[in-house]
Amino acid sequence: MSGNSIGKFFRLMSFGESHGSAVGGVIDGCPAGIALSADFIQGELNRRRPGQSEVSTPRKEEDTVEILSGIFEGKSTGMPIGFLVRNQNQNSKDYNHLKDLYRPSHADYTWEKKYGIRDYRGGGRSSAREHIARVVAGAVAKQVLAGYGISIRAYTSQVGPIAVTRPYQELPLERAEDNIVRCPDAGIAEEMIALIRQLRDEGDSVGGIVSCVIQGVPAGLGEPVFDRFQARLAHAMMSINATKGFEYGSGFAAASMQGSGHNDSFVMKGSEVHTATNRSGGIQGGVTNGEDIYFRVAFKPVATIMKRQETVTRDGKEVTLEAHGRHDPCVIPRAVPVVEAMAAIVVLDMLLEARTDWGR
Amino acid sequence: MSGNSIGKFFRLMSFGESHGSAVGGVIDGCPAGIALSADFIQGELNRRRPGQSEVSTPRKEEDTVEILSGIFEGKSTGMPIGFLVRNQNQNSKDYNHLKDLYRPSHADYTWEKKYGIRDYRGGGRSSAREHIARVVAGAVAKQVLAGYGISIRAYTSQVGPIAVTRPYQELPLERAEDNIVRCPDAGIAEEMIALIRQLRDEGDSVGGIVSCVIQGVPAGLGEPVFDRFQARLAHAMMSINATKGFEYGSGFAAASMQGSGHNDSFVMKGSEVHTATNRSGGIQGGVTNGEDIYFRVAFKPVATIMKRQETVTRDGKEVTLEAHGRHDPCVIPRAVPVVEAMAAIVVLDMLLEARTDWGR
Amino acid sequence: MSGNSIGKFFRLMSFGESHGSAVGGVIDGCPAGIALSADFIQGELNRRRPGQSEVSTPRKEEDTVEILSGIFEGKSTGMPIGFLVRNQNQNSKDYNHLKDLYRPSHADYTWEKKYGIRDYRGGGRSSAREHIARVVAGAVAKQVLAGYGISIRAYTSQVGPIAVTRPYQELPLERAEDNIVRCPDAGIAEEMIALIRQLRDEGDSVGGIVSCVIQGVPAGLGEPVFDRFQARLAHAMMSINATKGFEYGSGFAAASMQGSGHNDSFVMKGSEVHTATNRSGGIQGGVTNGEDIYFRVAFKPVATIMKRQETVTRDGKEVTLEAHGRHDPCVIPRAVPVVEAMAAIVVLDMLLEARTDWGR
Amino acid sequence: MSGNSIGKFFRLMSFGESHGSAVGGVIDGCPAGIALSADFIQGELNRRRPGQSEVSTPRKEEDTVEILSGIFEGKSTGMPIGFLVRNQNQNSKDYNHLKDLYRPSHADYTWEKKYGIRDYRGGGRSSAREHIARVVAGAVAKQVLAGYGISIRAYTSQVGPIAVTRPYQELPLERAEDNIVRCPDAGIAEEMIALIRQLRDEGDSVGGIVSCVIQGVPAGLGEPVFDRFQARLAHAMMSINATKGFEYGSGFAAASMQGSGHNDSFVMKGSEVHTATNRSGGIQGGVTNGEDIYFRVAFKPVATIMKRQETVTRDGKEVTLEAHGRHDPCVIPRAVPVVEAMAAIVVLDMLLEARTDWGR
Repeated sequence: MSGNSIGKFFRLMSFGESHGSAVGGVIDGCPAGIALSADFIQGELNRRRPGQSEVSTPRKEEDTVEILSGIFEGKSTGMPIGFLVRNQNQNSKDYNHLKDLYRPSHADYTWEKKYGIRDYRGGGRSSAREHIARVVAGAVAKQVLAGYGISIRAYTSQVGPIAVTRPYQELPLERAEDNIVRCPDAGIAEEMIALIRQLRDEGDSVGGIVSCVIQGVPAGLGEPVFDRFQARLAHAMMSINATKGFEYGSGFAAASMQGSGHNDSFVMKGSEVHTATNRSGGIQGGVTNGEDIYFRVAFKPVATIMKRQETVTRDGKEVTLEAHGRHDPCVIPRAVPVVEAMAAIVVLDMLLEARTDWGR
Repeated sequence: MSGNSIGKFFRLMSFGESHGSAVGGVIDGCPAGIALSADFIQGELNRRRPGQSEVSTPRKEEDTVEILSGIFEGKSTGMPIGFLVRNQNQNSKDYNHLKDLYRPSHADYTWEKKYGIRDYRGGGRSSAREHIARVVAGAVAKQVLAGYGISIRAYTSQVGPIAVTRPYQELPLERAEDNIVRCPDAGIAEEMIALIRQLRDEGDSVGGIVSCVIQGVPAGLGEPVFDRFQARLAHAMMSINATKGFEYGSGFAAASMQGSGHNDSFVMKGSEVHTATNRSGGIQGGVTNGEDIYFRVAFKPVATIMKRQETVTRDGKEVTLEAHGRHDPCVIPRAVPVVEAMAAIVVLDMLLEARTDWGR
Repeated sequence: MSGNSIGKFFRLMSFGESHGSAVGGVIDGCPAGIALSADFIQGELNRRRPGQSEVSTPRKEEDTVEILSGIFEGKSTGMPIGFLVRNQNQNSKDYNHLKDLYRPSHADYTWEKKYGIRDYRGGGRSSAREHIARVVAGAVAKQVLAGYGISIRAYTSQVGPIAVTRPYQELPLERAEDNIVRCPDAGIAEEMIALIRQLRDEGDSVGGIVSCVIQGVPAGLGEPVFDRFQARLAHAMMSINATKGFEYGSGFAAASMQGSGHNDSFVMKGSEVHTATNRSGGIQGGVTNGEDIYFRVAFKPVATIMKRQETVTRDGKEVTLEAHGRHDPCVIPRAVPVVEAMAAIVVLDMLLEARTDWGR
Repeated sequence: MSGNSIGKFFRLMSFGESHGSAVGGVIDGCPAGIALSADFIQGELNRRRPGQSEVSTPRKEEDTVEILSGIFEGKSTGMPIGFLVRNQNQNSKDYNHLKDLYRPSHADYTWEKKYGIRDYRGGGRSSAREHIARVVAGAVAKQVLAGYGISIRAYTSQVGPIAVTRPYQELPLERAEDNIVRCPDAGIAEEMIALIRQLRDEGDSVGGIVSCVIQGVPAGLGEPVFDRFQARLAHAMMSINATKGFEYGSGFAAASMQGSGHNDSFVMKGSEVHTATNRSGGIQGGVTNGEDIYFRVAFKPVATIMKRQETVTRDGKEVTLEAHGRHDPCVIPRAVPVVEAMAAIVVLDMLLEARTDWGR
């Protein structure tokens, strides 16, 4: 009943429903003395903002963040950072017709079974609008991590059947933000956009995959045996709305491989130990090894579609639902900053935890 | 530095290295008044035991569990359950040649970087031998869950390129234990066994996939927004040695699908709400919906192989490693009970947590 | 570095500095379906509000709470309750002279050593103003507890050397709010008020004791061996600003007693088991026994006084400090609702935890 | 239901009943690379051992600890330290007459109400025998802390009405172990011994106070606002069997004081900031200030006495209980090492946590 916080050292507790007064949260454990830019935080929110392009929902929301505490004269003080984003444009009446029925593949039925009560307006807290708090916390974490030379970059690697096939090393990741689907392969980006346009016009939606690369993480992060780096990363990713799968390094492909073809040989590069290949995805024995960390997160197609669907009402009648409203045909482009944010939270959390390893 | 416990309510803290005196743990939070059978626990351990068949390591270890507390007159008392399994057959000298080098794709390098010290004997705590504690805790959890009508069944669904293609609904899951690879499709099981034999003889290893089905879970388990049921499940699975990926329900395949083809319609079955299909894998909005929960976990090939490999020593020299010893060519069959155990821990943990949802 | 949350099931994470924009927090784990009154919450805040009487600081602050989430149509939804209280009347310039010196027996020195940075305006987060978040969370908890017939009542039992000597059973606890020191013994209240007035005029301050009685708690709350009921209660009380000691039941007086005079005999009252006396303070073996829980919390005199004091500056110079400003000569009356709030949080937290005890 | 662990970073989970096979636990989070002496651990256990003198229970138990993991070649490896102490001399039949009644001021009634089942043999897990695990974990913590120059020394400061009146600074603390009551004032020790002898012969018991001094703790430990140093210390102390109160620094006496007489002036000692007095008990604003930390813990008289007492049975009959057996007339001398152990756990835990404060 109390699943609204994440992180042990760098910790976010968030709140807020889609059509309530505000979403926001408290970030506890941000190290003291870090220069934190509110503009950077707002910039990250803008990447997640609805209405930012034709492939996202046409809802226009400004999502302006207000920082309430924890920063003094531009720097973190070690005190908790409270923040909120007021909700706008919330027309609750839009949702009255959903009050008494369960939308397919939404949280309506399960949350009502669980809590016995449901804020049905726009999905309430089950709406992806709660991701705002994640993005704010992630933007704080990213700024702390930048001081360690750690960077995190996610991108759209698949939309429906259209997939980037080149490995991340061969892609111009810095160009991912140049197009509205956030795909670093410009040609494939165009195909993705065309597909999303088509499905939007058909009132349908589509799934996809976000890939993510973390660079600059030192060796030694991760807490075996239960809090392996990949376990905490998987937890964070699978806590994002609409995710269906997680894999890192060689991922599911490893199942088909043999040890002789999968093992990463150690080699010296100058005086440093490195691996010749990186099927380990930067993690061995649950602990980072200093190589790039990379992973992929699968998202299902958005459950809200503009087509007729069969469902049932609260009192057990079978009915036909025909949704209308303003929704994303594909959440992948807007999920990219959320994946980055969650990765940043995990990395910082485990970076702080690793400080407690040694005797002195 | 303190990643050796899992669970919030039903909680395991484990200890023990491969070649130390014992592995074991403490289980806290087992509800009181449950009849617990030590035989059942031992039986589960036997399913994970080394040397149980020709496809596993030829090391013979009895792995006899001793329960030290928490059970009185055959029932749980609500007090912590301490237990241990003495290590046998530990010939530490076998490992002296590994003292000063880093085995590829093992934990040697990263743990030494993290802790500055390493128990190199048989991998120390990074050995899968720590799974023993998981299996014991899982066996306790399974017995509690049985009282709720909840059952958990995992099986080998892929070994290298050889995969079960039929969905779990069409498989005789109760037959999985009939063969040494724990695959419910007898024909495919034979192919798997042949492949493992061949790779064993070549001194190589192979990866695979474990699939798992949980039946009888009531609607309402899972703690949004960060502790969604699938997030905790993914955490638990990705904490198992050698895992590379996790997916539930439609999984990565969902990325290619459209909403109209992915959504699970609600239908009435008698007076109960059900879904016509189950691409949701029994979880919607992070909360169980009463349908079967199913998921898949990818494992990499065992890192220990009997072939020559390039690596480096602690003092930075490049060397060639030729391993010998007694290892599994494929861990998947022995991972099946471990996946079940971790699933049982998660389900019971979240079942207990769900009790705190309502006002009264 | 992350000490800004309390509670495991009913959990508060708070934020905010004395002279920042707001103080507030997030309450996670409030059971769903509880009717929650915002007026009641505001009423509790009013009991803690500065400027409420001549014995408190003359600062006037409205401390109006805004609830941002988690309540829908007047009832808790099981979702986190975000809230904030805007700061008013914050004249930061008042504090510039404190920027470079350490006030005796304040947090100035230790927090600067810890964090390397300090928001010196009005004590920043070390100010008792953070108690606002506790009172809000406590007011929510009280409303949940009321549904279980559990009530919590604290009162001022000592101010400086003036102490209530009668046990709580002989006092009209419901009259505690009738006077500005919140002492249920009207005669002693007058003496207390006179003493505080005198010390205020002298620019000095005074300590005191808050006593608290919790009635209606069922037997069975508390989690041995480390989370005994009294351990969690002590933790919560000793987390309040300016507290120096905690005792429950017979308390420190037990040290002088013999077992034959201290043990509480069991007796039947009708069909119920009770104790003839209650030196146990309602807790035996770390678990509540159904009798009244009572405890006492000692507070030191407020550190801010209007007299000359010796101290040092950040760069190591010894200086004389002469404070001015608006402060409480005695915090005890305003601490009464804070003690109640923390008690409510602990009781509800442990009530929820106790739900996980049994097998079914 | 899961209160059997303490600490966040340096964490103990313990198990074991008085008359089960063993008591023990797992220590997670011990920093790596620390030389740990098993002899020192055993020595600490010997200080707690029953039968060590005429003022303790005449039960003879060896309490030999076996370390099962986490130490390699004499040093901690960062892995969890499993340990156990086998129970001896457990004659369960001694307790059959207690099976169906509730001993006054014991845990019998409350635990049965809570769990619905009770291991009545010697109090089961409610026995102070679980303190063994605390002493082992404390002995590990002490060895880590010694590397930081931190020492912890507790002593008996009161037994019944006989109290040490001199402050700790004037006592030869290193002489506390010279007598069987562990009181550093030899004259008062004799009085205490005489009193305990007398009460033992009368079949009665007596309460007392343990005082404790922690030296060498650097400034900066403690996690405001909820995990103030004193809050975590109070939690740990109030989790010890039979404790009734906690105070630190000026403690309850502060209630009677005025700010002008209570504040600790800052002064320079060479280039270091210190306080001229130490009524703060080494903690200001919830954070250590580098001065000595001192605190006192009140214990009730042992509930088991050899006198007739009134009580009730499980089925509600009022009966007279006449205990026999082997019990301590006064637990204070054997509680001294337990108080030290819990203090060591808290200090190390918060020392590790403080490492996460700064940006780099």
